[in-house]
Amino acid sequence: MRVLITGGAGLVGNALTRLFLKKGAKVLCVDNFSLGTRRHIQEFENNSDFDFMELDVSVPDWHKKIRGQSFDLLAHLAANSDISLGNAHPEMDKRRTFETTFEALMVARDMKIPKFIFSSSSAVYGQNPPMPTPEFSPSLHPVSIYGAGKLASEAFISAFVENYGIDAWVFRFGNVVGEKLTHGVIYDFLGRLRKNPSQLNVLGNGFQTKTYIDVEDCVSGIYLALEKSPAGSLHSDRFQIFNLSTEGATSVRQIAEESCRVLNLKNYKINYEDSPIGWVGDVPKTSLDVSKIKKCGWRPQMDSTAAVFKAIKDYALWSQPGT
Amino acid sequence: MRVLITGGAGLVGNALTRLFLKKGAKVLCVDNFSLGTRRHIQEFENNSDFDFMELDVSVPDWHKKIRGQSFDLLAHLAANSDISLGNAHPEMDKRRTFETTFEALMVARDMKIPKFIFSSSSAVYGQNPPMPTPEFSPSLHPVSIYGAGKLASEAFISAFVENYGIDAWVFRFGNVVGEKLTHGVIYDFLGRLRKNPSQLNVLGNGFQTKTYIDVEDCVSGIYLALEKSPAGSLHSDRFQIFNLSTEGATSVRQIAEESCRVLNLKNYKINYEDSPIGWVGDVPKTSLDVSKIKKCGWRPQMDSTAAVFKAIKDYALWSQPGT
Repeated sequence: MRVLITGGAGLVGNALTRLFLKKGAKVLCVDNFSLGTRRHIQEFENNSDFDFMELDVSVPDWHKKIRGQSFDLLAHLAANSDISLGNAHPEMDKRRTFETTFEALMVARDMKIPKFIFSSSSAVYGQNPPMPTPEFSPSLHPVSIYGAGKLASEAFISAFVENYGIDAWVFRFGNVVGEKLTHGVIYDFLGRLRKNPSQLNVLGNGFQTKTYIDVEDCVSGIYLALEKSPAGSLHSDRFQIFNLSTEGATSVRQIAEESCRVLNLKNYKINYEDSPIGWVGDVPKTSLDVSKIKKCGWRPQMDSTAAVFKAIKDYALWSQPGT
Repeated sequence: MRVLITGGAGLVGNALTRLFLKKGAKVLCVDNFSLGTRRHIQEFENNSDFDFMELDVSVPDWHKKIRGQSFDLLAHLAANSDISLGNAHPEMDKRRTFETTFEALMVARDMKIPKFIFSSSSAVYGQNPPMPTPEFSPSLHPVSIYGAGKLASEAFISAFVENYGIDAWVFRFGNVVGEKLTHGVIYDFLGRLRKNPSQLNVLGNGFQTKTYIDVEDCVSGIYLALEKSPAGSLHSDRFQIFNLSTEGATSVRQIAEESCRVLNLKNYKINYEDSPIGWVGDVPKTSLDVSKIKKCGWRPQMDSTAAVFKAIKDYALWSQPGT
């Protein structure tokens, strides 16, 4: 199998690349290093089944740079995953989260790549969906620009499936965490605590409680869905959506405390705000119904808090100054 | 009230402009004449409350051309409404249907326009939704590029409502018809029958049965929703969605026969295909649950077939060669 991965230098991109290589696939990763880094792909550099190209997948016709190659699957993971940044610069978020998807779809169409994987997000559900939220939620009203970009992406994937014979697997992730983080709450807390070990200012009251998933569990879910839930003939069997996260949840307070503990801080103060949300567009409670992906035989190795605590430990090492 | 209307030279734009002028508003229409024509705005040209500017609202920062003005409401109607064209040129449809919305939202944000009206479509519901389809349908999986552009637009409107203090009224239209058509089945049939009065080739088997609404009923629904369903404080009361169509439906066969009758054709043949759909991405049956807009006191003056038959008659006159 020949696999093309956009955002291949990100957290999920790194783990998915490793998994596909292990399964015997040839993998071409593309990334513009807007969030991921060269270090995220270093481990594959001597693998002859791996190739990398630095390019911006929001630019039309980027596939001209990989002309002559062919692929069985396109995993489109490139996005701006920094949700609060989208509020300040919606045009940037639109480009990185939505345009990248549209151009990846055009590439799948033009290069006749039959299978398309997409990393969507629980952010598409917006505020106050039923919890745990099933894939067929009656209201899809995102409150973040990021969530809008993901839902807009899903909309075009759905139409491309019908119009151009592409089969799609869409995964609405919880918060994916692991050693090679490029953004998010753990990344922020550890970065800020290293700059100022005596004080951590938390956005919101810290009771925001969200669902986290370890990146290895995440990519094993993607692989299982591909294997156990092949495309059928109807649109609804060719455009498949899966929630992908653990069933539990972890609070921001737990993450803040554990971050201080892992860094061996003694005299520190964690300051919380009064607001129940951390920023405009923040969804303070998330919980996903994952019974559909479980029907594929998926069982996560770690629950939400175990995934978070492991990620804090691993990312603290990975991001240690001097590494 | 000062109103900015994009797509002001279209079918709905024309009727909405007339209604707002009648209610005492000042109206600035913008349009790039991709579908609408100068003739669509001619009737307002001597009205001092009316102004027009030719511009493409998919271009970033188009509001710089109307700098110094201020508005209470932006009605964003500009789009590519030619669904089958979107299949051939998705990048064009993305620009005209989605980018126009994104840039209109940026204009509303930057010009601090507090109210935003959007012409969405039943195409967001995709294939086989429950019928009649309520606004909170569990599956929003569009099968046309057009429907994708509309759902993508809704997603960003939802996020802009949360992020930038804009209140939005989204209307999912059935097929809007009237004298000043710029596209669609009646427009096509009459145009083709005038070229070849002996034969009409219909896309699909003609049993496609969709919901139609007269353009005057459509704009009266928009106006009533604004008046009777003001924004509240929660996101769900500030991002409001209304289905807007009649409860009945009309078949393509009825439209073909009536078109021939209105043109006084005697020896003609209507040819149907075997396929239940007219083109890839066509949704052959649509029926909308309109109880929500009815709660605002809305009562359509015409049912689906009356609206269609009137539009055939009126558009036949409007489009008569030499007019």
